[in-house]
Amino acid sequence: MSARTTLTVRLGGGRDYPIHIGAGILGEAELLRPHLPGRQVMVVTNETVAPLYLDALAPALEGLERREVVLPDGEAHKTLATVAGIWDALLDAGFHRTATVLALGGGVVGDIAGFAAACYQRGVAFVQVPTTLLAQVDSSVGGKTGVNHPLGKNMIGAFHQPRCVLADVATLDTLPERELRAGLAEVIKYGLIRDPDLFAWLEARMPALLARERRALVEAVAHSCRNKAAVVAADEREAGQRALLNLGHTFGHAIERVLGYGIWLHGEAVAAGMVLAARLSVEMGWLEPAALERIVALLEAAGLPTAPPREADGGAMLEAMGLDKKVADGRWRLVLLRGIGRAVVTDAFDRNALERLLGAG
Amino acid sequence: MSARTTLTVRLGGGRDYPIHIGAGILGEAELLRPHLPGRQVMVVTNETVAPLYLDALAPALEGLERREVVLPDGEAHKTLATVAGIWDALLDAGFHRTATVLALGGGVVGDIAGFAAACYQRGVAFVQVPTTLLAQVDSSVGGKTGVNHPLGKNMIGAFHQPRCVLADVATLDTLPERELRAGLAEVIKYGLIRDPDLFAWLEARMPALLARERRALVEAVAHSCRNKAAVVAADEREAGQRALLNLGHTFGHAIERVLGYGIWLHGEAVAAGMVLAARLSVEMGWLEPAALERIVALLEAAGLPTAPPREADGGAMLEAMGLDKKVADGRWRLVLLRGIGRAVVTDAFDRNALERLLGAG
Repeated sequence: MSARTTLTVRLGGGRDYPIHIGAGILGEAELLRPHLPGRQVMVVTNETVAPLYLDALAPALEGLERREVVLPDGEAHKTLATVAGIWDALLDAGFHRTATVLALGGGVVGDIAGFAAACYQRGVAFVQVPTTLLAQVDSSVGGKTGVNHPLGKNMIGAFHQPRCVLADVATLDTLPERELRAGLAEVIKYGLIRDPDLFAWLEARMPALLARERRALVEAVAHSCRNKAAVVAADEREAGQRALLNLGHTFGHAIERVLGYGIWLHGEAVAAGMVLAARLSVEMGWLEPAALERIVALLEAAGLPTAPPREADGGAMLEAMGLDKKVADGRWRLVLLRGIGRAVVTDAFDRNALERLLGAG
Repeated sequence: MSARTTLTVRLGGGRDYPIHIGAGILGEAELLRPHLPGRQVMVVTNETVAPLYLDALAPALEGLERREVVLPDGEAHKTLATVAGIWDALLDAGFHRTATVLALGGGVVGDIAGFAAACYQRGVAFVQVPTTLLAQVDSSVGGKTGVNHPLGKNMIGAFHQPRCVLADVATLDTLPERELRAGLAEVIKYGLIRDPDLFAWLEARMPALLARERRALVEAVAHSCRNKAAVVAADEREAGQRALLNLGHTFGHAIERVLGYGIWLHGEAVAAGMVLAARLSVEMGWLEPAALERIVALLEAAGLPTAPPREADGGAMLEAMGLDKKVADGRWRLVLLRGIGRAVVTDAFDRNALERLLGAG
């Protein structure tokens, strides 16, 4: 694979869009401009990313009517009030239906900006320029946007697809080590769900990824987006297939909830959650113990946790899982593994085995 | 036509939905229940409608987990804060993704409740039970939802289609006379846009409609919904065809803006706006003067205004029209008439004729 590549996410209905992946592509106008319906662009970013990459993005927006909203950094600001502030800015600037909202930042910025775009004048164009590995491999594909509510994460939001994604792996140079590792948890997840070749490639290339070799990063982002796009294209609104993307997430969300959000990064919680899902799969005889060992070894190589923190005892975990919004109408479903690259959504799991696993039996 | 009928709005992708139209159908569980994905229903209504029709609706929801949000009456409350209150209520009640939001009321209630449904957990089921003529013939078809912003009407919102619409013309018994007439303006609009037979039928049946004869009301609602549904099905996101539905609205919105919202009802402003559109069409030689006379006569028979109020002088009207969000990227487009039942969207109108017409030449 060369140091740049383009995928097309197939959604049909004239909504197909490209993901451009490369190093140093942030300012390339020709990648971006064909996807802007008008001349007005509202860049939504945060106070950490703005000084790092706003100037690098500028050439791509030259000659347009450009405004910025610079948010404070952090998930604490992923609220309806923040989105309302973006709507105020759009209206203050007299932005029309043909305006574009461009998210420059990580998943939080993308979720907020995407939701602002989804509901401004009932939907305007949205472009993602993700600057974290997690956002590049996860949040920028799938169309999920939204904000948190005091009573739950991502409770208010919309599905709104971008017109274009620019994933510049050069922006990962400034990403804190811990966030890079957390992003790799999601890359490993795609391997586990449906791509055994990706999993094997990760076993070989983890050192290169941790060293931020650009060619390796481009390949990791491209394989991740390709896998996620395939799942999302088959099931845009998360009725069936798409639930596979939640591998490790029911456990992971429970860990985050028990610890308090923000103590562990999402990717860290998902890593431990994937090991729990794999252990339960082994308990039920669905997964070879050798596969579990490979999974643990790869997560360890990525410097990720492979077990929940001590604070997440069995009772607390089960209670937190019962509140998870992915549990449809009170019925428990989990994503488990029948092999590396072969995840299944099931309600036919052994509840007793689950409780033993969590130490709540 | 019998005193009840059912239309199906064809949207494709498993999103087709029925509009049940009849008298006294509000409490019929068998019309509603097949469209609820789960057992949780949040009824959104207002303090005027609740005492009139909440009890009549109750049998349709028997045995379900039902909650209510009763809003204050009036468009002043069509705000993001009101929608946020509905989200709070949904989360306080622990409502899942399989919950349904049911709007019982007029267009304002429907717009607010629909937007709440659109963005709760990225979209839950929505049912419309419109209790005004305007909502029955207009707002309950097309999927537009949203709220106002201090800087513009309907600036924040989403497209979100209902699973089912129950239009009970018996609820129109309590509708103030003026609101009935304003609703008829939109019925007349459908005739003008694309249905000359409906226009002729209205010329014959206006006295029956004003007397609230149920059979006539069912027929008017059904013909209106059928026309709107046909336009919307062809063009769900308002790129082309759907703009025809704005006949009289660019002028009408300008009248509302100049007078201040709420002085004239929306339908009244649209009535005067349709006459302006017809007059401009005559000026340009597109419409026979005899057709203009029929239009004015029918609107007068419905007790609707056929000219803007004196306060709406030409300069103010033009300025207000320039701000209209239907003007794409600064380019003026208007919906004009080439005959009764034959509206066209055009930017090829005579600007000087327009200014003469508005007295701003």
